Amino acid sequence: MKFGGTSMAGTERIRRVANIVRAQAAKGDEVAVVVSAMAGETDRLVNFCREANALYDPAEYDVVVASGEQVTSGLLALTLQAMGCRARSWLGWQVPIKTDDAHAKARIEEIDAPALIAAMQSGQIAVIPGFQGVTPDGRVTTLGRGGSDTSAVAVAAAVKADRCDIYTDVDGVYTTDPRIVAKARKLKNVTYEEMLELASVGSKVLQTRSVSLAMKEKVRVQVLSSFVDENAPDADSLPGTMIVSDEELAKISQEGLDMERQLITGIAADKNEAKITLTRVADRPGAVAAIFGPLAAASINVDMIIQNIAKDKGETDVTFTVPKADLLRAQTLLEERKEAIGYFRLIADDKVAKISVVGVGMRSHAGVAATMFKALADRGINVQAISTSEIKISVLIDADETELAVRVLHSAYELDAAA
Amino acid sequence: MKFGGTSMAGTERIRRVANIVRAQAAKGDEVAVVVSAMAGETDRLVNFCREANALYDPAEYDVVVASGEQVTSGLLALTLQAMGCRARSWLGWQVPIKTDDAHAKARIEEIDAPALIAAMQSGQIAVIPGFQGVTPDGRVTTLGRGGSDTSAVAVAAAVKADRCDIYTDVDGVYTTDPRIVAKARKLKNVTYEEMLELASVGSKVLQTRSVSLAMKEKVRVQVLSSFVDENAPDADSLPGTMIVSDEELAKISQEGLDMERQLITGIAADKNEAKITLTRVADRPGAVAAIFGPLAAASINVDMIIQNIAKDKGETDVTFTVPKADLLRAQTLLEERKEAIGYFRLIADDKVAKISVVGVGMRSHAGVAATMFKALADRGINVQAISTSEIKISVLIDADETELAVRVLHSAYELDAAA
Repeated sequence: MKFGGTSMAGTERIRRVANIVRAQAAKGDEVAVVVSAMAGETDRLVNFCREANALYDPAEYDVVVASGEQVTSGLLALTLQAMGCRARSWLGWQVPIKTDDAHAKARIEEIDAPALIAAMQSGQIAVIPGFQGVTPDGRVTTLGRGGSDTSAVAVAAAVKADRCDIYTDVDGVYTTDPRIVAKARKLKNVTYEEMLELASVGSKVLQTRSVSLAMKEKVRVQVLSSFVDENAPDADSLPGTMIVSDEELAKISQEGLDMERQLITGIAADKNEAKITLTRVADRPGAVAAIFGPLAAASINVDMIIQNIAKDKGETDVTFTVPKADLLRAQTLLEERKEAIGYFRLIADDKVAKISVVGVGMRSHAGVAATMFKALADRGINVQAISTSEIKISVLIDADETELAVRVLHSAYELDAAA
Repeated sequence: MKFGGTSMAGTERIRRVANIVRAQAAKGDEVAVVVSAMAGETDRLVNFCREANALYDPAEYDVVVASGEQVTSGLLALTLQAMGCRARSWLGWQVPIKTDDAHAKARIEEIDAPALIAAMQSGQIAVIPGFQGVTPDGRVTTLGRGGSDTSAVAVAAAVKADRCDIYTDVDGVYTTDPRIVAKARKLKNVTYEEMLELASVGSKVLQTRSVSLAMKEKVRVQVLSSFVDENAPDADSLPGTMIVSDEELAKISQEGLDMERQLITGIAADKNEAKITLTRVADRPGAVAAIFGPLAAASINVDMIIQNIAKDKGETDVTFTVPKADLLRAQTLLEERKEAIGYFRLIADDKVAKISVVGVGMRSHAGVAATMFKALADRGINVQAISTSEIKISVLIDADETELAVRVLHSAYELDAAA
């Protein structure tokens, strides 16, 4: 079970979390709980580090910020004990959760779980601070922001859990953002790959890394709400969204257990990309490498790329997207290399949105893309770029048309819930 | 070097601390720094624990409250790095500072210092969170409130430090409380035993445990102020108060290095005691045991005891003091045993103060007590009880006369600073 910062914000909310944990343990289940710091606490600690040292040493930054989860793990153990449960906290170095030494963005390498498993088998609830681990040299590490989801999946894999329940402030994964489409439906099941595509394009229910890890370790993950009333169905009846393998989804489908599943699983909108167009680039070998080589060297991820048909003058326009946060750096890099690349003008546009339709069903169905382009064209929405993967089609459009596009596509793929 | 919570309260103050540490290290000294949590932080964390579980498990309490010092140790390391110093934090379990498993009031058993010493010898400043350690089972412990002084002395002993400088919000140990006597003088030197007597009767400059440990491990401790301006003399010129052994004090005296030293080192006032009188106790064998046995069993410390001369009826009045915080418990215990003890009336009085004169010089000088009683009698101050040790004479008086008594004695022993 994993609880985020909003659920852990203060002793009253921690009591609510403890009630959920106690109910699960009362069924005879062996339970480990991974917790985040109180909402706002990590920001407070990060600010202290910045004030102390603008170019902070990530090893010491980790010592400071890991304390937030240490506090909530102790408090949840205390609260469970007050309710009559046996519980103890297991700090990252105590488990141990072994990571590499890439401080502030460490990767979990191994979890030595025998002691943890033995304690759980004895009936003790294990409370584990998320986000933290320990290097081979015995120094504290953190996994980067949002790392607690990854901690939860890694612990679930290490103890061979039947399920990893991630309690959040939403009650599952939806076909799209319910704030945009009121008729968005909660999904019963999504596959790891669908979730990865949805997460990476802006449905920030789970951290992408945690989904990749779940896929690699075959951990069944349920996303569900920690803000449930007493009469709500419990986690075992799978009230949230299960994230499962292709095989498990196929089995679920064969058994008719997810009748509402459509060809398309969800529609995501992402406003974190910006578009760069270089006009009149010389149409010669090496021109593309001259553009994208320096960007890659600077760790700037280029996503969608379009090269317009070469005009008769041997010139071409190249359009691509980069993360909005890297736009200025990318512009500077490219302007410094204007001569070497050989282009006429650089046009940057950060008023764009990437709209993606995602679903494993599209592997076996033609016509998914055609439906998309027709639906958008019918409403006069101009597509500026396209990219596809096996289970996703993305288009770049004017940011002002984001909500309209999402609603149009949600209807076009018949995802709207019955009224 | 050890810095308390007031000195660590916020990044701006931590920068001031870092400046002091840097100056010391810049002389080529190997430096370890022990830090407290930010002022107020431990209280905040303790309150969380109480809210979570009124009868909290001290093992989990330790996990929560130890985080305060973890944060400041990381921040001080970062701040030192920002100033160009090499520095790293060493958490209790990393050093390791090995303690017993008496959580929330653990005792340090051993510090495995080789790694710490090697790092210090390489020129790296070691920053160590005070107040925390680790059990043989690898669980986090804390040493009890004020334990950071003890951590500092223990680390100083482990690394065989030349000196343990404890920076506080006062600039040394005074002949008495300067708020009571404006002419109180700062002492250049006190012995461990004098400091213990002064600390235990209310001069709360250092935690008593830390002084005991310093005495046992022969650590030279200097108390000095962390609120110094740039032109102040540095710690090596011993601007504070040195706490030393009898032998070192004798050497200092022989060399004429502490000309201002008097027969009496200091005068302390303690308002934390209460007086209990049992009237008309049967003057028979076992009566005293019947009174003090149950109090000892309940861990109530009895300090001063007077048994009045037995009257012809074979009865006597017994007067003694207990900590004010234990007064109600002591009364209840004694009233329950009224029959068994055999007394007429219990009179409790919490409006008393214990005034003590302390000094190793009194070992070799008669007349110290006589001076005290005469000075008090001359001002009409009634002495209700007396207790003595080799280097201390204490009297119990009416609490309203506390300040008067301290001033009278400060003058009587010629402790007043020249105007």
